[in-house]
Amino acid sequence: MSRRSSHSPQTDSAVLLSRLERAREAAAGTGLLIAPGSDLRYLLGREGGSLERLTTLVIPADGRPALVVPKLEAPGYDDVPTAELGIDIVTWVDGDDPYAAAVDRLGKPDRVAVSDFTPALHVLAMRAALPGVEQVLAGPIVRELRMRKDAAEVEALRKAGAAIDRVHARVGEWLRAGRTEAEVGADIAAAIVEEGHVAADFVIVASGPNGASPHHSLSDRVIEPGDVVVVDIGGPIPEGYCSDSTRTYSVGEPREADVVATYEVLRLAQQAAVDAVRPGVSAESIDAAAREVIAAAGLGEFFIHRTGHGIGLDVHEEPYIVSGNELILEPGMAFSIEPGIYQPGRWGARIEDIVVVTEDGVESVNQRPHQLMVV
Amino acid sequence: MSRRSSHSPQTDSAVLLSRLERAREAAAGTGLLIAPGSDLRYLLGREGGSLERLTTLVIPADGRPALVVPKLEAPGYDDVPTAELGIDIVTWVDGDDPYAAAVDRLGKPDRVAVSDFTPALHVLAMRAALPGVEQVLAGPIVRELRMRKDAAEVEALRKAGAAIDRVHARVGEWLRAGRTEAEVGADIAAAIVEEGHVAADFVIVASGPNGASPHHSLSDRVIEPGDVVVVDIGGPIPEGYCSDSTRTYSVGEPREADVVATYEVLRLAQQAAVDAVRPGVSAESIDAAAREVIAAAGLGEFFIHRTGHGIGLDVHEEPYIVSGNELILEPGMAFSIEPGIYQPGRWGARIEDIVVVTEDGVESVNQRPHQLMVV
Repeated sequence: MSRRSSHSPQTDSAVLLSRLERAREAAAGTGLLIAPGSDLRYLLGREGGSLERLTTLVIPADGRPALVVPKLEAPGYDDVPTAELGIDIVTWVDGDDPYAAAVDRLGKPDRVAVSDFTPALHVLAMRAALPGVEQVLAGPIVRELRMRKDAAEVEALRKAGAAIDRVHARVGEWLRAGRTEAEVGADIAAAIVEEGHVAADFVIVASGPNGASPHHSLSDRVIEPGDVVVVDIGGPIPEGYCSDSTRTYSVGEPREADVVATYEVLRLAQQAAVDAVRPGVSAESIDAAAREVIAAAGLGEFFIHRTGHGIGLDVHEEPYIVSGNELILEPGMAFSIEPGIYQPGRWGARIEDIVVVTEDGVESVNQRPHQLMVV
Repeated sequence: MSRRSSHSPQTDSAVLLSRLERAREAAAGTGLLIAPGSDLRYLLGREGGSLERLTTLVIPADGRPALVVPKLEAPGYDDVPTAELGIDIVTWVDGDDPYAAAVDRLGKPDRVAVSDFTPALHVLAMRAALPGVEQVLAGPIVRELRMRKDAAEVEALRKAGAAIDRVHARVGEWLRAGRTEAEVGADIAAAIVEEGHVAADFVIVASGPNGASPHHSLSDRVIEPGDVVVVDIGGPIPEGYCSDSTRTYSVGEPREADVVATYEVLRLAQQAAVDAVRPGVSAESIDAAAREVIAAAGLGEFFIHRTGHGIGLDVHEEPYIVSGNELILEPGMAFSIEPGIYQPGRWGARIEDIVVVTEDGVESVNQRPHQLMVV
């Protein structure tokens, strides 16, 4: 009856308590309604279900937070240390009005913030239940906390990085001419789980011309000798933190004449961006560092996406490494650095590592070689 | 970079065109904004991604529909027969305002409906982009179509039902004393995929006292001889349609003295509800049919949830088989019938089949025996 189970390690309750307090401070008088998902996992240690029945963590500007949850789903929160966290559990059954129950715990704020991925179903019902109260997104509030990872979070990202590195180390077992992308992808997906992920969240095997489409995932295209193949894979580990790493492979020597030189430009661009990471520089400066190397080689028009995205409990979160993002990097921020060069109709390449800003520089959680891997 | 791949069979374009036209008729002047998810899959044959960038199918009251989609994700819709469907593809890149693009295609409606599971991120942005326009949910509009399955949909539900039946037929291979629920669940999850599902969407193995919690999923509890074990499992098949079936097992002869007689009441209740299904009766009458049998045996207080939920592209959708739902059943409606009896602290049992309303009665897509299965 319920969705994916969440059999997973618990976060320390002192850490959770600190996060709750900081979320309330960051909200600065705005009431918070946190829906199941990564925000709830961050604050409560539980991702929660995401069905049609309302579950919401109510964090009022003053007073005790409350988890409003369907009675049938309440046992799923039994191992949340609610007493230590000072959270009341408010259950409801079919026939009750859960929105009224949430409003009752909110107090009388002028503004209420809902998690960015709260379903419209609940967004509109909460709006109707709070006439005259401004409704805003909780994302900008919670992301201030979430994008600064603590030591345990960085350790979880390292663990995820090592797990996906082990999968990349095995790609040569499966990637060869005569197989389809989908067949190779199925083997990789199984290995992602074998190597310690909860699930294979995404598996991109983009061969030959498909590599020129950054968001291609899998197809029935049969891989040919000489194909360049982009393999971009990842998933969450039991702690909830995500891996995401791309390497580019060649099935034998590459067929296209421009691969070797172009790939070298890409490798240097990715390295330049990693080397540029340290506290005090802007997110967009990292994007620029990669882009300048590629542009200087006359290939700028073939790098058609941002350089990276933050990562943590979500595979895409703040900070985004993109032109226009003036955010100043701080220790604990974690994100991908993944420039790509895409030659329409022929081939593409991308190199992606997850990096963490340290006190004085950068640490990569991915350790696989950056060269074009000939398999 | 993208989420779970969707390598899946396409729905016939004539069927899709008819759905689009009926959706517009059902909307009756309200503009529709359909987000990635099951509504989009129903109308376009593609579930789409669900990341932070806006993708929305705009169905204006008049004029051509448009799919507003990030340029990088547009190739994922290449096999949608947009020309036959009369749909324009409107791409956008980082820096563009995708909400303005969607508004531009909406015309000037007084009301706009957003998919029930549209993230708040996009709900609030669309509200800001459409000042003075009433925002409502699209669910009540689209569900009028979706809850009446056509022949191909019923066939897909049969296929899903047969696949999950094959998993239940194998539960005896894995369920035994000395193993944990989590270990058994991992084997079942693998079999769900082996038997033809895209993924194991949920795996409940609720043993002994855990069986008394309807939403328990998996734990490290070691299964003991004499345990009654509720196994509730399902997932989507490549066509997108979901399976969901529960059987209750006993590890050797049941330990508790009241299991056999109580289980027989449950079996009769489930059968009574199935037998009550036909066109022209209400959804709540099916709930009552199960509930009356259990209440007559003096066990009414232990049946603590509704009798069922609709199923299709979502594992939970309309029609809900619950007291208060006066909806009259029609041929093509598909839903679970899953009464349960829960004895707190001791054991629980549930039996669940997916049934489809036929022209003159009912068809079950699940064929496994209903008896308590002693393994």
